[in-house]
Amino acid sequence: MTSRTVASATPAAAAAAASVSVPLAVGSAPPPPPLAQQPSSSSDFAPFIPGFLHWVHVCNNGAAAAAAGEFLDLTVAGRTVGYLKADFAERLLQFPDVFQRSGSGSSGGSNGGSSGGVAVHPRLATQQQRTEAIAGVLQQLRAEGLIEGWRDELYPAVQSFHDEPAFLIERAAAPHFGIKAYGVHINGFVTLPDGSQELWVARRSRTKPTWPGKLDHIVAGGQPHGLSCQENVVKECEEEASVPEQLAVRAKAAGAVSYTSLQPAGLKRDVLYCYDLELPADFVPQPQDGEVEEFMRMPVHRVAEIVATTNEYKENCALVIIDWFMRHGYITPDMPGYLDLLRGLRSGDCS
Amino acid sequence: MTSRTVASATPAAAAAAASVSVPLAVGSAPPPPPLAQQPSSSSDFAPFIPGFLHWVHVCNNGAAAAAAGEFLDLTVAGRTVGYLKADFAERLLQFPDVFQRSGSGSSGGSNGGSSGGVAVHPRLATQQQRTEAIAGVLQQLRAEGLIEGWRDELYPAVQSFHDEPAFLIERAAAPHFGIKAYGVHINGFVTLPDGSQELWVARRSRTKPTWPGKLDHIVAGGQPHGLSCQENVVKECEEEASVPEQLAVRAKAAGAVSYTSLQPAGLKRDVLYCYDLELPADFVPQPQDGEVEEFMRMPVHRVAEIVATTNEYKENCALVIIDWFMRHGYITPDMPGYLDLLRGLRSGDCS
Repeated sequence: MTSRTVASATPAAAAAAASVSVPLAVGSAPPPPPLAQQPSSSSDFAPFIPGFLHWVHVCNNGAAAAAAGEFLDLTVAGRTVGYLKADFAERLLQFPDVFQRSGSGSSGGSNGGSSGGVAVHPRLATQQQRTEAIAGVLQQLRAEGLIEGWRDELYPAVQSFHDEPAFLIERAAAPHFGIKAYGVHINGFVTLPDGSQELWVARRSRTKPTWPGKLDHIVAGGQPHGLSCQENVVKECEEEASVPEQLAVRAKAAGAVSYTSLQPAGLKRDVLYCYDLELPADFVPQPQDGEVEEFMRMPVHRVAEIVATTNEYKENCALVIIDWFMRHGYITPDMPGYLDLLRGLRSGDCS
Repeated sequence: MTSRTVASATPAAAAAAASVSVPLAVGSAPPPPPLAQQPSSSSDFAPFIPGFLHWVHVCNNGAAAAAAGEFLDLTVAGRTVGYLKADFAERLLQFPDVFQRSGSGSSGGSNGGSSGGVAVHPRLATQQQRTEAIAGVLQQLRAEGLIEGWRDELYPAVQSFHDEPAFLIERAAAPHFGIKAYGVHINGFVTLPDGSQELWVARRSRTKPTWPGKLDHIVAGGQPHGLSCQENVVKECEEEASVPEQLAVRAKAAGAVSYTSLQPAGLKRDVLYCYDLELPADFVPQPQDGEVEEFMRMPVHRVAEIVATTNEYKENCALVIIDWFMRHGYITPDMPGYLDLLRGLRSGDCS
């Protein structure tokens, strides 16, 4: 795998890219590199900011379309819980027992200017009724090949995280319905005796259907219905990296990033909860569930260089890593673009 | 000084308040309290969230007025750099060599819906010319008692932090002109051997003109023109708390909070850069410039209790402390209100 520069990189990022030589396949848990390779000053991060902003823009490539009202509201009892592409909306309306057209102009979702849309049929009065009826529709759409990558994992359809879900829906269908989706993303890091820090980096399995071979956090996972975030962190730590529970519970909640991404299926409206997990220097994560090909530990500056100047990373993970850089003093207010980046990390509907 | 509960506190905050008994005057550097007083779980913070949200709303009591266009744009060469109350705008227009009415409807500031406004006279073509002309106006307004609390400190008038300033203006006049103002706010904290943490808390001098006797960060200061944020952090650390440079440079940039506050003078549009300064357990800050009456070290949970259930704290400092709680795992996604709080901390124009 070669390092590729970001096509639309700015001159600053391009300059930074030109100086990069990143042999990525370093195997599991390499020894810390000589200190001379580690920057002593956070000022080294200034040239990376244009490259970081690039990923903010990439992850928010659906914001303009959403604001322009190019999607139809999906409502339940008058509350907008999703956004639909026009052709997918038409397909749903072919199930008149489950979906019906809502009056144009009835909309007013906080997240976009779309007018009119599709309502879940009001005869489906409870969460369970709606969940079952929509599951029936999805079985048919799945059989037609319209919904791919079935996960057997239920996501709640909500306006904001702690709402009572209007219905539960198979994870693979979330982007088709423009449902808000939540995840827990964990940056695992080590602080060396000299105070410098290294981040654990995972390379996703090349056989994974999504983002094969891309770089990722030590642990990250979608937030399914019925688990607390804390429980999910512990579960994913064990499953993905063999991090034992007594270490996993040390993961600290540290904020969230959000974005609005345009995908072939529809609008991906994600909020990723960011966790910091400081690990002992002698801990080495191990792949367990086959989702990860290898784990590598890298100096923070090198991770920043890869994020800013290549497209090795899974895109949304780049945002969570940039958020970590911002919270840990690597990016500072004296660097131009600081507040643009800070603001950009929560461009999506962060509710 | 007695602990007061927040007048508009929610039932949850009121319940928390009822259980508070906070003897605040504990003198400098008290010994760490017995461990039994320290909560072992961050779940203790859930009842504080309504109290934390209260301060977000208090600090943003100017947002609605700004959005409703109750202020007039102040423009320089077509760019909006401030917002004016109508009567202050009329007063400025009595200096026709310096200010002139701008066409109504010419506005479009990203920050509000105000129409028309006041322009700095286009014959003042450079930053220096504008700075000098406005300073002359301010001398007269100061003599009239219209501008109080003169600081002899220049703030830049910008749309965003790294812009070339349109002009420089005395700090005391910033709210009258609705100029963006920036500051550096430093949370000083200690990690005890058992892993628990304590925050350094300052009590402002009772002779200070602004917020006398209120609780504050170990160090905080406005960001004047001509200093980098890093230089300002080191300078303020020395001046306010006798933190030596070799400790002060360890302060880590960790983000920012922003808010839009309505004041008698006008609109306070602030961005506060948040810094984390982890201090050795044996370091004791000392008041130096007379701005601080005493420093106290308190368990994190106790600081949270004070913020959530009293009005002891200077209001904007509450936001920076809440941001620290959020970044250090004390407030978690499983607590209702988490994202409202996270979003609320950057309600203002964070640019």
